[in-house]
Amino acid sequence: MPSNEYKLIYWPEVPGRGELIRLLFEEAGVAYTDTAKGPSDSAVSAVTGSLSPKSAGGSGNPPVLAPPILQHGGLVLNQTPNILLYLAPRLGLGPADGDSMFRLNGIVLTLLDGFVNEVHETHHPVATLDYYENQKTEARRRSKGYRQERLPKFLAYAQQLLEADTSGEGPWLYGGQLTYADLVLFQGIDGNTFAFPKTMKKLKESGKYDDVFQLYEAVKQRPGIKAYLASDRRAPYSQGIWRYYPELEED
Amino acid sequence: MPSNEYKLIYWPEVPGRGELIRLLFEEAGVAYTDTAKGPSDSAVSAVTGSLSPKSAGGSGNPPVLAPPILQHGGLVLNQTPNILLYLAPRLGLGPADGDSMFRLNGIVLTLLDGFVNEVHETHHPVATLDYYENQKTEARRRSKGYRQERLPKFLAYAQQLLEADTSGEGPWLYGGQLTYADLVLFQGIDGNTFAFPKTMKKLKESGKYDDVFQLYEAVKQRPGIKAYLASDRRAPYSQGIWRYYPELEED
Repeated sequence: MPSNEYKLIYWPEVPGRGELIRLLFEEAGVAYTDTAKGPSDSAVSAVTGSLSPKSAGGSGNPPVLAPPILQHGGLVLNQTPNILLYLAPRLGLGPADGDSMFRLNGIVLTLLDGFVNEVHETHHPVATLDYYENQKTEARRRSKGYRQERLPKFLAYAQQLLEADTSGEGPWLYGGQLTYADLVLFQGIDGNTFAFPKTMKKLKESGKYDDVFQLYEAVKQRPGIKAYLASDRRAPYSQGIWRYYPELEED
Repeated sequence: MPSNEYKLIYWPEVPGRGELIRLLFEEAGVAYTDTAKGPSDSAVSAVTGSLSPKSAGGSGNPPVLAPPILQHGGLVLNQTPNILLYLAPRLGLGPADGDSMFRLNGIVLTLLDGFVNEVHETHHPVATLDYYENQKTEARRRSKGYRQERLPKFLAYAQQLLEADTSGEGPWLYGGQLTYADLVLFQGIDGNTFAFPKTMKKLKESGKYDDVFQLYEAVKQRPGIKAYLASDRRAPYSQGIWRYYPELEED
């Protein structure tokens, strides 16, 4: 009989997309198993084993192509925004249905595009499966466009969301209370501050996105998040989505 | 009072991501307004007007960053997978809740990654906002990786889904009946057959993905889809996501 505990299956040693899911559990104070935190060998084989065709189709679950993967009871899900959509109402971080569920999902998908997916492209613009070292020139060009055009565009979008939401007093993106969208934006800002420290400093100091950076600080001070960030459960950034390559920063 | 009719707001003159949404209406035989089909000027201003900060926040709708956009009653949604998730149960093309809703959403997000999002990167790998002509060399490299590694990977995923689903007799991806996931896969195969005709012919003839190509034909023969494809509502491919550049194909 499958356990009813939440189990996250993700690559070890990087925050990566798994981090977007961990933050929900940590904010909610809900227990979860995290295969990335086991010995490195077993952490990797937890992922590769879940992607094997042999694992497919059990209990009506379709095969999954890539992690993160969430197991909950007999259910196996993948795709970051899908897992977030499933978890949010169960962890008190978003509505279970109705217009608000879709509005929030639209916000989250857009934040993931701008602060996660496009960041991976900055260091792997022409060959997804090849090493960064073999596409440095192209990465410089893509990163320039990201730093100068895309990142400010997505920051402006987040700022606009915060200015448009008049439903509450808090610093939150939607509906006047903390939702999983705020945690996603937090992680995006945090990861980008690691990857592009000079650019992010300048963008912060521009004063154009004050509400965004205020939200970032507010999430950081949530008791569950604060304890998590200080713990050894929070993996340091390294060779995942958010990487620091000085040559990809501004001159 | 807002109309309760479905209204799609999208760029004119290309199928693009709007097509993924149109196919649901056309399969279901449900009326919808499509701003792309008006005069080109008004079609463009329907999009740009919806993205204006001035449009934001009405009736509790957050601002949207990019089309496609769906209006339904007072609700305004963006993000393709979000709009599809909203429409599917309303058009009889997917479940409204429960584990199946999430399993299907995971499938659809993965298909969109592989057959839509990564295709756009093939011709715009290093400068999202610049012309293709200014990134042709990089596009050749990205396209090679897409043709040789990524596209076969996503086709194999779809084939694996079809082999794993033992719940019905039909050619469909999930649950033994046609869902919106099948329409998304259809559009992905159709678009890629335009963009990479030689590659797709070879992949089809490999015999490794027979169920995928069988599903493609089955969707094409659905009465609503067949009538749509023969109508002038179906925009020809041009300079959108699926583009044909001979130099990006195999030698």
